[in-house]
Amino acid sequence: MSYRTVFALSELEKNDFLPEPLWNQATKLLPQSTWVELPLQDDSQWEALLKKHNPEILVTAWRAKPLPKSLVGTDGFSLKYVCHLPGSVRKLIPREYIEKGVTVTNWGSSISPTISECALMLVLNALRQTNQWNFVMHHDKKWRGDVIESKSLFERRVGIHGFGAIAQSLIPLLKPFRTEVWSYSPSVPDNVFNELGVKRATSLDQLFSECGIIVELAPNTPKNYHVVTEKHLRSIPEPHVFVNVGRGAVVEEAALLRVAKEGKLRMGLDVFETEPLPENSELRGLRNVMLLPHLGGPTPDRRKDSGEYAVRNLERFLKKEPLGSLVTLDVYDRAT
Amino acid sequence: MSYRTVFALSELEKNDFLPEPLWNQATKLLPQSTWVELPLQDDSQWEALLKKHNPEILVTAWRAKPLPKSLVGTDGFSLKYVCHLPGSVRKLIPREYIEKGVTVTNWGSSISPTISECALMLVLNALRQTNQWNFVMHHDKKWRGDVIESKSLFERRVGIHGFGAIAQSLIPLLKPFRTEVWSYSPSVPDNVFNELGVKRATSLDQLFSECGIIVELAPNTPKNYHVVTEKHLRSIPEPHVFVNVGRGAVVEEAALLRVAKEGKLRMGLDVFETEPLPENSELRGLRNVMLLPHLGGPTPDRRKDSGEYAVRNLERFLKKEPLGSLVTLDVYDRAT
Repeated sequence: MSYRTVFALSELEKNDFLPEPLWNQATKLLPQSTWVELPLQDDSQWEALLKKHNPEILVTAWRAKPLPKSLVGTDGFSLKYVCHLPGSVRKLIPREYIEKGVTVTNWGSSISPTISECALMLVLNALRQTNQWNFVMHHDKKWRGDVIESKSLFERRVGIHGFGAIAQSLIPLLKPFRTEVWSYSPSVPDNVFNELGVKRATSLDQLFSECGIIVELAPNTPKNYHVVTEKHLRSIPEPHVFVNVGRGAVVEEAALLRVAKEGKLRMGLDVFETEPLPENSELRGLRNVMLLPHLGGPTPDRRKDSGEYAVRNLERFLKKEPLGSLVTLDVYDRAT
Repeated sequence: MSYRTVFALSELEKNDFLPEPLWNQATKLLPQSTWVELPLQDDSQWEALLKKHNPEILVTAWRAKPLPKSLVGTDGFSLKYVCHLPGSVRKLIPREYIEKGVTVTNWGSSISPTISECALMLVLNALRQTNQWNFVMHHDKKWRGDVIESKSLFERRVGIHGFGAIAQSLIPLLKPFRTEVWSYSPSVPDNVFNELGVKRATSLDQLFSECGIIVELAPNTPKNYHVVTEKHLRSIPEPHVFVNVGRGAVVEEAALLRVAKEGKLRMGLDVFETEPLPENSELRGLRNVMLLPHLGGPTPDRRKDSGEYAVRNLERFLKKEPLGSLVTLDVYDRAT
């Protein structure tokens, strides 16, 4: 079985997501494929191009333009499957496509480990106060005094808010530190907790007040908007670590700032309610807060994990086997 | 069997190294013990105090003053065992004490894991360019552009120079990242490499030119002085990471600075040839170099690991069993 396929990717995307031997594997699998190099000179060409190639399979990444609502369901438009290499599809694919039976997949959990790697790094940095030492060593041009407040991750209790794919892939990275892991995630069933040896917190309040190291990884659903409040942040016991590699809007950012400015909490933030973080954000300049510009993951060198995952999905599609990380209407509506 | 014992410790040292239940265990074990709280009001009291208590066992840490050469071997001076809670004993204990049969132990490898924790943190930071982002986010007050140079540790090859206790305790921390570990350490036997699944590099040149991530952990023996040269640093392949949590003098620091200033190498340095790092060191201000003020470890919260180790040693001493981490004359002469 062969399908007309369009890889709509920039050269960088092609090289990052589908480096050899993946590109070779993908094109062998799909002999009727064309690579349309993005960006196009003129955005209006996008619709014309889709009509001209009329792909049955479309492989996309960040540089692809939104699929025109008008095309789906029209006579002769053959699109059956959009294999999106990154995560978020809402800006690319109108809901109508899924309603009318177009199959959509994304990178699913294939890239989770690199984001948990960032979480681990921010936890270690918060415990060691690396951000403060960056100020002291590079800007104050000083050394340490007698008392150092460095702390270790060994044998600590870690609380994870949210227990999806990223949180789950954090567990093996924490294991050699002999940590005790708790998590709060009402939607994840008990067996997942049990298999990974993670204790289920009965409430968000309990998670924050019992775990001295909190890793924020809850999805940004309407229910989770600002669900982490000043009370939660203030309740984190010693060693007072709060790391967010999930979504900024889950935390009440004004409260986060108030607590951060007091200096007791050791924070690592990769995500913010408003991104890019405004130039005048008062988080900038705080020695107890490490800031990253939302680069949790995947690091470009691991985009190939998503490419490998996509090639397996394309193969399954050809064999009419069930696909991984299907974006169903339900998933689509819950996505952020 | 009971021995006259003096714990010569500051209150902070007592609490950090021997928190309950360790203090209780130690004093139960040694019913004839006295805690002499340091520092003394007057340094000259130290010798008088040793004469007065005439301990058979002396437990020390950083605040203890050097043991007078004149005492050892004198009639009636009963000292048999110095149980030093930290590592380095050379400033505290004259060589004559060991020559004349006083037993000396230190923390040995009991605190190695926290130093390897620091090594892992610096490697992750170098790969993600965290130090650069600290400048960008806190000082430039900017955000990232389109191209991010973040890299992941997953499936990388890591080269460790030196394969002592700290290097060995780094292996389990690296394991979940599916790294391939090489090490160069002529003195460590093959079976240690084999047991830990580490490949032996045949030369320092090979280690540096074949491993994109170098962790410097070689001891500062005369043979190792400046053994890492500009040529080695320049030969580190992609992702160009160099981390030093061992000893500064192993690396030719002028060469390190020259290479660092070019910006290609991603560095994390906890140790320096001159400590404290001079205020005008040109390493200060470099965005590709994370600097820490020699706080690799143990973090104060893990000094208890050394205390636990010491209590076991005291117990062994009472039972006349072989002690761990004996500072023999050979160890004493090789120490730095």
